[in-house]
Amino acid sequence: MGMECSQNSQMKIVKGDAGYVLEDVPHLTDYIPDLPTYPNPLRSNPAYSVVKQYFVNVDDTVAQKIVVHKNSPRGIHFRRSGPRQKVYFDSAEVHACIVTCGGLCPGLNTVIREIVSGLYHMYGVNRILGIDGGYRGFYSRNTIPLTPKFVDDIHKRGGTILGTSRGGHDTSKIVDSIQDRGINQVYILGGDGTQKGAAVIYEEIRRRGLKVAVAGIPKTIDNDIPVIDKSFGFDTAVEEAQRAINAAHVEAESIENGIGVVKLMGRYSGFIAMYATLASRDVDCCLIPESPFYLEGKGGLFEYIEKTLKESGHMVIVIAEGAGQDLLSESLQSMDLKDASGNKQLQDVGLWISQRIKDHFARQRKMSITLKYIDPTYMIRAIPSNASDNVYCTLLAHSAIHGAMAGYTGFTVGPVNGRHAFIPFNRITERQNKVVITDRMWARLLASTNQPSFQDAKDVAEVKEEEEESQTQLLEGANSRDDKPLTNSH
Amino acid sequence: MGMECSQNSQMKIVKGDAGYVLEDVPHLTDYIPDLPTYPNPLRSNPAYSVVKQYFVNVDDTVAQKIVVHKNSPRGIHFRRSGPRQKVYFDSAEVHACIVTCGGLCPGLNTVIREIVSGLYHMYGVNRILGIDGGYRGFYSRNTIPLTPKFVDDIHKRGGTILGTSRGGHDTSKIVDSIQDRGINQVYILGGDGTQKGAAVIYEEIRRRGLKVAVAGIPKTIDNDIPVIDKSFGFDTAVEEAQRAINAAHVEAESIENGIGVVKLMGRYSGFIAMYATLASRDVDCCLIPESPFYLEGKGGLFEYIEKTLKESGHMVIVIAEGAGQDLLSESLQSMDLKDASGNKQLQDVGLWISQRIKDHFARQRKMSITLKYIDPTYMIRAIPSNASDNVYCTLLAHSAIHGAMAGYTGFTVGPVNGRHAFIPFNRITERQNKVVITDRMWARLLASTNQPSFQDAKDVAEVKEEEEESQTQLLEGANSRDDKPLTNSH
Amino acid sequence: MGMECSQNSQMKIVKGDAGYVLEDVPHLTDYIPDLPTYPNPLRSNPAYSVVKQYFVNVDDTVAQKIVVHKNSPRGIHFRRSGPRQKVYFDSAEVHACIVTCGGLCPGLNTVIREIVSGLYHMYGVNRILGIDGGYRGFYSRNTIPLTPKFVDDIHKRGGTILGTSRGGHDTSKIVDSIQDRGINQVYILGGDGTQKGAAVIYEEIRRRGLKVAVAGIPKTIDNDIPVIDKSFGFDTAVEEAQRAINAAHVEAESIENGIGVVKLMGRYSGFIAMYATLASRDVDCCLIPESPFYLEGKGGLFEYIEKTLKESGHMVIVIAEGAGQDLLSESLQSMDLKDASGNKQLQDVGLWISQRIKDHFARQRKMSITLKYIDPTYMIRAIPSNASDNVYCTLLAHSAIHGAMAGYTGFTVGPVNGRHAFIPFNRITERQNKVVITDRMWARLLASTNQPSFQDAKDVAEVKEEEEESQTQLLEGANSRDDKPLTNSH
Amino acid sequence: MGMECSQNSQMKIVKGDAGYVLEDVPHLTDYIPDLPTYPNPLRSNPAYSVVKQYFVNVDDTVAQKIVVHKNSPRGIHFRRSGPRQKVYFDSAEVHACIVTCGGLCPGLNTVIREIVSGLYHMYGVNRILGIDGGYRGFYSRNTIPLTPKFVDDIHKRGGTILGTSRGGHDTSKIVDSIQDRGINQVYILGGDGTQKGAAVIYEEIRRRGLKVAVAGIPKTIDNDIPVIDKSFGFDTAVEEAQRAINAAHVEAESIENGIGVVKLMGRYSGFIAMYATLASRDVDCCLIPESPFYLEGKGGLFEYIEKTLKESGHMVIVIAEGAGQDLLSESLQSMDLKDASGNKQLQDVGLWISQRIKDHFARQRKMSITLKYIDPTYMIRAIPSNASDNVYCTLLAHSAIHGAMAGYTGFTVGPVNGRHAFIPFNRITERQNKVVITDRMWARLLASTNQPSFQDAKDVAEVKEEEEESQTQLLEGANSRDDKPLTNSH
Repeated sequence: MGMECSQNSQMKIVKGDAGYVLEDVPHLTDYIPDLPTYPNPLRSNPAYSVVKQYFVNVDDTVAQKIVVHKNSPRGIHFRRSGPRQKVYFDSAEVHACIVTCGGLCPGLNTVIREIVSGLYHMYGVNRILGIDGGYRGFYSRNTIPLTPKFVDDIHKRGGTILGTSRGGHDTSKIVDSIQDRGINQVYILGGDGTQKGAAVIYEEIRRRGLKVAVAGIPKTIDNDIPVIDKSFGFDTAVEEAQRAINAAHVEAESIENGIGVVKLMGRYSGFIAMYATLASRDVDCCLIPESPFYLEGKGGLFEYIEKTLKESGHMVIVIAEGAGQDLLSESLQSMDLKDASGNKQLQDVGLWISQRIKDHFARQRKMSITLKYIDPTYMIRAIPSNASDNVYCTLLAHSAIHGAMAGYTGFTVGPVNGRHAFIPFNRITERQNKVVITDRMWARLLASTNQPSFQDAKDVAEVKEEEEESQTQLLEGANSRDDKPLTNSH
Repeated sequence: MGMECSQNSQMKIVKGDAGYVLEDVPHLTDYIPDLPTYPNPLRSNPAYSVVKQYFVNVDDTVAQKIVVHKNSPRGIHFRRSGPRQKVYFDSAEVHACIVTCGGLCPGLNTVIREIVSGLYHMYGVNRILGIDGGYRGFYSRNTIPLTPKFVDDIHKRGGTILGTSRGGHDTSKIVDSIQDRGINQVYILGGDGTQKGAAVIYEEIRRRGLKVAVAGIPKTIDNDIPVIDKSFGFDTAVEEAQRAINAAHVEAESIENGIGVVKLMGRYSGFIAMYATLASRDVDCCLIPESPFYLEGKGGLFEYIEKTLKESGHMVIVIAEGAGQDLLSESLQSMDLKDASGNKQLQDVGLWISQRIKDHFARQRKMSITLKYIDPTYMIRAIPSNASDNVYCTLLAHSAIHGAMAGYTGFTVGPVNGRHAFIPFNRITERQNKVVITDRMWARLLASTNQPSFQDAKDVAEVKEEEEESQTQLLEGANSRDDKPLTNSH
Repeated sequence: MGMECSQNSQMKIVKGDAGYVLEDVPHLTDYIPDLPTYPNPLRSNPAYSVVKQYFVNVDDTVAQKIVVHKNSPRGIHFRRSGPRQKVYFDSAEVHACIVTCGGLCPGLNTVIREIVSGLYHMYGVNRILGIDGGYRGFYSRNTIPLTPKFVDDIHKRGGTILGTSRGGHDTSKIVDSIQDRGINQVYILGGDGTQKGAAVIYEEIRRRGLKVAVAGIPKTIDNDIPVIDKSFGFDTAVEEAQRAINAAHVEAESIENGIGVVKLMGRYSGFIAMYATLASRDVDCCLIPESPFYLEGKGGLFEYIEKTLKESGHMVIVIAEGAGQDLLSESLQSMDLKDASGNKQLQDVGLWISQRIKDHFARQRKMSITLKYIDPTYMIRAIPSNASDNVYCTLLAHSAIHGAMAGYTGFTVGPVNGRHAFIPFNRITERQNKVVITDRMWARLLASTNQPSFQDAKDVAEVKEEEEESQTQLLEGANSRDDKPLTNSH
Repeated sequence: MGMECSQNSQMKIVKGDAGYVLEDVPHLTDYIPDLPTYPNPLRSNPAYSVVKQYFVNVDDTVAQKIVVHKNSPRGIHFRRSGPRQKVYFDSAEVHACIVTCGGLCPGLNTVIREIVSGLYHMYGVNRILGIDGGYRGFYSRNTIPLTPKFVDDIHKRGGTILGTSRGGHDTSKIVDSIQDRGINQVYILGGDGTQKGAAVIYEEIRRRGLKVAVAGIPKTIDNDIPVIDKSFGFDTAVEEAQRAINAAHVEAESIENGIGVVKLMGRYSGFIAMYATLASRDVDCCLIPESPFYLEGKGGLFEYIEKTLKESGHMVIVIAEGAGQDLLSESLQSMDLKDASGNKQLQDVGLWISQRIKDHFARQRKMSITLKYIDPTYMIRAIPSNASDNVYCTLLAHSAIHGAMAGYTGFTVGPVNGRHAFIPFNRITERQNKVVITDRMWARLLASTNQPSFQDAKDVAEVKEEEEESQTQLLEGANSRDDKPLTNSH
């Protein structure tokens, strides 16, 4: 009972009783036979020697489905992360490298610190290289030797000590460099695009038959990575966003018909905007990419602004950077620009909407408004991670280390319902985590701001039907999600 | 299939297939027959009208067990919280009250705010009383009428606008007061002792056959409530504790053989100390109630201090307020004092250990030390909740409201593996959530501080055996816990 | 000895021995004869009764010139502020009003609070009106009754509880309103333009022969008010600006050839930019209105950027909003726009220079740069004042109160060399306090950033000569100023 | 006209016209004849070359007396600090050292940083040693080579990178060490006792006829150094103290008859307590060393507490660590303990007064109180300096450097009425700056808290008379002081 089908080189599906499905990650032994194993050095570590059942049972899996009925099928599971009794690397043989790619996110330095400290203190590894400046650093820049002492204080600083960049992903050059340098563990911190790159690197390494473990640590300040509960730095970002919202509120309140507009991060997902709005309570309207809106006419934004100003004399609008892109593109007809990482080069929606609001009220002549626009993006990205993210980053780093040491490869790490798991690359890159606007958390936001839903009943009905057809398995998850403080759509 | 046995008036056990167990909460209809129901007013709320499957399926339950094997039994479940299609109160009839008891905790005001706003905006309830000064306020103080406007900004302030007190729980007087005032929903914020009191109030109300829903919102800055993932305010407290640890580190580093001692909250559970230590990385020794330690001799604290000072010239010690009570009581022989709430009146362990360390090194004469003692307790308790706790407090308040409106009573609320649930009182008061020192999170801490475990192998073996016998069901949970960023042993 | 000449209705010049000059402020008795006086009620205030020599000697003056030689002339003095033995208002007769005009500045609420509390507690005044929304509030909006209880906590909030606006100064309507409402003390908080307006109101009141004292409290976050040591909110603003600079530094450091550009307040004076740069040490170039610069060619900004990037790989630029206006206007040819208060509507110099830098390096093709632009303006303006500004605001409020009660009118208040004084309106509105770039503080900045001076020796020589001719008296002051932590050019 | 009399080796008195007195500092040429001079290297520094009249006129002095009448005598002056045309050290010959002594104070690292950077960038000096661990580091510890790169980021950290200690002043050993190492500029950061030690070191160096300049930078978080406007770190400390006061307020407000007690720094001077109280407005009683108080009976503290609790239900008390020492010593009869630096080892007055208050109300049995005691001392001392202190520390460091390079010795530095000056050691060590409780600032505090003055009229009259006799010259200054935001009694 239980059938395995290696769907592709990036995922292994294992099935069990009562609808149990395990989406497993690759292992070095999938393509290298007869690899020797070693007892886990943690066995002789005094800190761990007192721990009961310290090592994770090789069969442990983490359930993705929490909300159930008495006779629900058990659904998808992931392999539980954690240290294994046996490891596939001798500590002396390990030569690890770490690279950080893409935009800044609070916690990057903490993850770097904990990979270095964890490899050193838990596994006695002392050859660890920092790749300077993102993917292209593999072939065009110097490397930075990393020691526990060198990284001791870096978690108190924002940014990444390794430097970062967008793009620069040249698979052959990167794998050549890995091979040339004798690196056998590769830790890759980055977002969606970076993890896709990591998957390709893993494929090439597998193709060449190298004993090199590739572990991804998903990084996205926007919390748009699916499957995992939340992404590191998100909590810190929501906290820091409060400053900007508070300032916008003070500015708006201090002047007649004052409007404060705050742009927050979120190219495709409005989580930061949504949570910052829910945490603050000073926001009258939150606009996110997932919820289309319109400006003119009945039920539109301008009408709502006018109404709010009449009622309370001021107003705060939070807009995620990716909101209203359709409107923006109509206005600007400039959608084909791409930045180096392949993301759409979005025009600044905050400046755009501010201008549109100003123009509207200038044209209307009924009401004189004063609008202040705040863009705290770089001030948020650059701060050090808070205590909660610090602990979280430690767990991510340890998961990645334990996984690589145990011979897993081509995997990412992250908590699923609070338990850390190994997750196949394609499960986190094939789509994005998004705010489900037909869910209760968004309803909660609508109720707290009193903003219009910008939707008519017919549209919603269609959305529902469509989703019900295409995503049957996710439906329940989607609903359940709205109970979770910080989580993803399944 | 599925057998119900009302174990007692506080919990209903429902069993299902494959080891499925539901620990359910009471309902007004358990003792009042033929209660009329009403359609949930959220149906006509514009914010919620677009939400797909907004109402929670009455059969939804939340699994306590996440880490499983292919054929694991399904284990304990709790009733999922959330709005129901039908409610058992007409909005016009509701007369709610809120009381806060015990010590301060970041987020109290946010929970108050959200109960008031939630009742008003979601259910159209506008008769809400604040009970002034804890339980005794029911019978000895004036009440405070609460409106959305009145509570609009209170989440930005620390403390509780309702005031609080310890003790004062006089069941008859309180239920008399509830009856006299015509109150039919009682929201009780407080810790362990307060929730026990809430359970007794619920029992008395049930005995009198009153249509009064009693909902507890568990409050404990120490995170020592079992079952739920974490308690509100905990995240804020760990964050704020970083300041004190950082100051202790600076003081210690600036002087030869400098020792910084920081006392943190935690009478019975060392979660704040543990997470603050893990988040900070500046701590060399973390002492918690769950991990006994000793001062003198080989493997003792003094030896470790001497070693650390010799190696790095300074040291930071974090001690939870309840740590080392056995040593303290030996020293002081003064264990019988009780404070008004029944908690043991603990002598200040921070002052005690500071004195013991100073005495030791003065006596030793080998080393001259300088010790600085910091007690940030009241500075931590009094701050407003951070963004993360703000959102969390909203969800708790909404859970409690939805539950009470739906006729549930004698229940508390909280997230179980990320999904909010209704939990029977006795499940959260019958024991305390504690750091499991034979678990991986504590091992992680030991590894990060390099402190001794203060245990010999024999002791640990005994602990293991004992736990295995008495808590078989909890074992796996206990282990699994160490993967979770912030959670409890189940 | 000592000759008085009432130069105009706004200043009285008194001369004394050894070059002593007193620039005095008007008094109600200048145009209303035979006003009755009353003993100062502070005499019977228990808090003040123990104070030795509490009342300021009517002859006390404050010297503007501190740095002297053995036989220097004594120079300009101002009348010392503080309570007088006799007052010209019976407490019961006082009807005060407070108005706040112009942009936000940390401390506005503190000054409001302290005028209200001070009038009430020191002088027993309890009729105090808040004018809503700036000057135009006198005739177009409702007023807000102000009591000590109402203002008790407002200093913990940013902004102004009275609301503000630009423009709206209609002298007759305002003085009509003052007369109609029976107001006899007018406290006006605002900048340069607002104080000019206050001077005109005073003139009109004097023309009408009203017993109304007009006191200005100079407000300018830019610190561009001359004569006084510094303006309230400036200290808070410089502190808060550190966040943005720090973020720019983190962003710039994390990427190859990263440039962080921070725009700070300062339309005509670069004090915030200069002090924020000096306090931070992370800035490589600080551009202010007082120091012209150029982009292209030898010694220009682009050359300096290229050099800095080559040397250290990243760079932080701070630019005051009024810097480079000549270059901007060449680019944009759009200098004639005016906002409602009459300030030049400046194009956003931060966006402009960011674009110019990006264009330059794109055109150059030698170097690929990444530029992040941060504009923290509204986040800085909106925060509450820090402790230092809180105390300062109290002293300003008390000075204004003591002056008005003592019958002075047409005056502003502020510290001169650390002692608070009454200062004639025209002395603070006739010109702006500016950074003297031929002074040591600016040299200190140049030395700390290593930026080019953007000046050739010939230009400087000319500036020197010019200044020496026109401002002989100020010369020494200008030089001496650079020793002062926070002060103005004389 | 103008007579010089070298009163002692630590001060030179120069007199001039109209009551002008200059209290000058020693110079190397006072005891070493025929020292060669060199042109100041700043002449060729590009940053300074554009500065008009950059060099301070050798005759410039700074007036201590600001508040004057038309014909007042001119009073005491100090030599103005700043760069001189000629210097007495060749840059290549300079070998400087820096030592930090006594307790921590925000800004120590900033001063260290700026001495190192200033010597290097302004004067081309590159031999600078850090003395490790205070005075005793001269003879018992290793030294730390200091470079601009090494100190680049230290201003962002609290504490002192050089380490500190109390005591350890052994004049011969220290001067031997200075001589042996060939050090010729000694920069000494420390408080009262440390500066006395610096004076003795200077005397011994003079006795030995060494060409070694000794410059003191006065450090005292308590602001108890006379003559200078304020001490560095004070502003930061007052700001940080707000947190503790705010927490005490929240705790007190949340419980019936809640009392929050906050102990702040201030052994002999209550400036921090006074300014923190004035800035916060949440304090009901501020107790400082300068203002004796009593507990029992009419007009006593207990009576005031009872009254305040009855009126508002809660209360916040701020107490400086040196307040009430007479009462404490009566209670404890333990006044003879001394710590290593010679300061009286004070019992913790905060714990003592908290216990006394609790005992009183327990005995009284009329009122049940809840008291929370907060001691934020080490959390305040250990933070980095704020922006305002950062700029201030730069100016202090530059003053010291310019003075030493110009051959002055045996001097300290600090601002007098906003202009930085060289000040003789004995002028700042011969007495302490104290809050003058018969002054207006203290009256302001009394008025804001409504606390009793704890004085009867007779006592005050006596104090006045006494002061008038002994300090005639200071009287006026003392009065004038109360107008200054942050300053000392002269």
